Amino acid sequence: MDITIGIDIGGTNTVIGFVTKEGKSLHETSFRTTDFPTVEPYIKKLQDTIDRILSEHSDWNLMGIGVGAPNANYHNGTIEEAPNLAWKGTIHFCNLLEKHFPHITTAITNDANAAAMGEKMYGAAKDLSDFVMITLGTGLGSGLFVNGDLVYGHDGFAGELGHTLVYENGRECGCGNKGCLETYVSATAIVRTMAEILCNSSKPSVLRDVPYNEMTSLSIQQALKNGDELAKECFEYTGKILGIKLADLVCHTSPSHIFLFGGVAKAGDLIIEPTKRSMEEHLLTIFKNKIKIEQSGLLNENAAVLGASALAWKELEKRGNL
Amino acid sequence: MDITIGIDIGGTNTVIGFVTKEGKSLHETSFRTTDFPTVEPYIKKLQDTIDRILSEHSDWNLMGIGVGAPNANYHNGTIEEAPNLAWKGTIHFCNLLEKHFPHITTAITNDANAAAMGEKMYGAAKDLSDFVMITLGTGLGSGLFVNGDLVYGHDGFAGELGHTLVYENGRECGCGNKGCLETYVSATAIVRTMAEILCNSSKPSVLRDVPYNEMTSLSIQQALKNGDELAKECFEYTGKILGIKLADLVCHTSPSHIFLFGGVAKAGDLIIEPTKRSMEEHLLTIFKNKIKIEQSGLLNENAAVLGASALAWKELEKRGNL
Repeated sequence: MDITIGIDIGGTNTVIGFVTKEGKSLHETSFRTTDFPTVEPYIKKLQDTIDRILSEHSDWNLMGIGVGAPNANYHNGTIEEAPNLAWKGTIHFCNLLEKHFPHITTAITNDANAAAMGEKMYGAAKDLSDFVMITLGTGLGSGLFVNGDLVYGHDGFAGELGHTLVYENGRECGCGNKGCLETYVSATAIVRTMAEILCNSSKPSVLRDVPYNEMTSLSIQQALKNGDELAKECFEYTGKILGIKLADLVCHTSPSHIFLFGGVAKAGDLIIEPTKRSMEEHLLTIFKNKIKIEQSGLLNENAAVLGASALAWKELEKRGNL
Repeated sequence: MDITIGIDIGGTNTVIGFVTKEGKSLHETSFRTTDFPTVEPYIKKLQDTIDRILSEHSDWNLMGIGVGAPNANYHNGTIEEAPNLAWKGTIHFCNLLEKHFPHITTAITNDANAAAMGEKMYGAAKDLSDFVMITLGTGLGSGLFVNGDLVYGHDGFAGELGHTLVYENGRECGCGNKGCLETYVSATAIVRTMAEILCNSSKPSVLRDVPYNEMTSLSIQQALKNGDELAKECFEYTGKILGIKLADLVCHTSPSHIFLFGGVAKAGDLIIEPTKRSMEEHLLTIFKNKIKIEQSGLLNENAAVLGASALAWKELEKRGNL
């Protein structure tokens, strides 16, 4: 059986999935990324892990390896200056992989782009050619599809909506700029917003008893469900900002669908409804009432691994190796 | 000789150009759009004009007709609810054209998209696959190229950067929203900004003697060249806002080049330099010092007509009719 491997390189863990063309994950395993301060032994560990699992499944035929990683550059096959990985500088990741897996097609892109590819191949975007995937985790990632293809941009780094500007001189962002979208819309951002609301309002809230460092978007969501007014205000504000920036996004590429992925997306209508309302309010007339905002079709799956695997299948197709 | 016709439908005038595949405009003519309150006699006028000129050039072989028009929808071949045209509702423009010119390939898109197509085929973007064209006239139009193709979006209306948001509850825009980019960056916007600066500052300026309705971006540019400090401030502010929104644009599609077209673009470094400075200041680190902002390569040509003609050539190629 032909399979590809999808690798999701996170700051903490690396997850490896063995996936069929139909998007069935046959096996998943993981190890700690942080155990490898340099990349060569990390690649060795990858190779050993993959070889071991392949040797247990002689009927699997490895066709390609796809990788989702922070600051990954599809065009160059590199990971460049990723702030939350120990490997500094420019890592020629695909070259390293191909050295250890000769004759295997490899491709790399950032995690949100990989998730978008997964949505296209296995999720709710199968029949769509213009859509956007927004991943709401620690930060805000995005992957754009235009004319049926993922947008990599001239340099391989397109799709960084998390770093579009909301407010000049706004909240400090990990990227070094201020006022970036992901400082207002992400799991971490929701906690920042909650803290701001707690100081500006004098209404009571169960969250006044929770230290900042213990607050999570999930606990705020729970408070909202229990009727906490300020928690509701927090999600309203988050949706408002996201809606404004999605209206901007629509002016760029006019997608038919915008999919939300990640823990915050699991809040469903608590986040989608205020986002839609704000987007519609700000949309140019010709775009009103036609752009759908929905939960990702892969919300309960490992979209990062499936997406990385989808990237490999897509690459095999592009190179005529399928 | 094979030719296509490029038609630029403006609110006031319609310009018709007869163009070779190499982008040489062999003949241009025009008539007033406003003479035709309904579209059927307008199409008849187009037909008569085109037939007359073709009959004078028996060696020209008409292959296709491309149209640039406000609110034009490439997918449907329509002009929809264009605010500055007398024809209301949805006009099936390509159908009407094809009725009068059977066996001729037709295509329509908005004027900025057509200009982008012209830049790609005849201008400075010949070898580029990811770039953006910004047209600075009465409004701000834009055409985006991604992966070598024009971005039409799911509904045919993509590329409306003029209506991305700068300030919530900002300046009133013709579209009905407030705070749109084109109310801060366009020929008209520059006059609005100048008026704002004149009221906020107490410095002298030659422009204090000019009524609002007589001020133009050109007269402000002239004042700047003559050393008027407030006129300089006006272009600085315009560039600052444009730079911020271009930094956002780069986060979406990461173009290698951004071309400026239209009267304001003719100001050259007076507008490009402050725009670049502001864009670089706001760009995410991975994008810094690699995106070029330049004048359009068609600045002294009729880009709208050339672009509409290029659209026709592209359509012939797409349909295998070349």
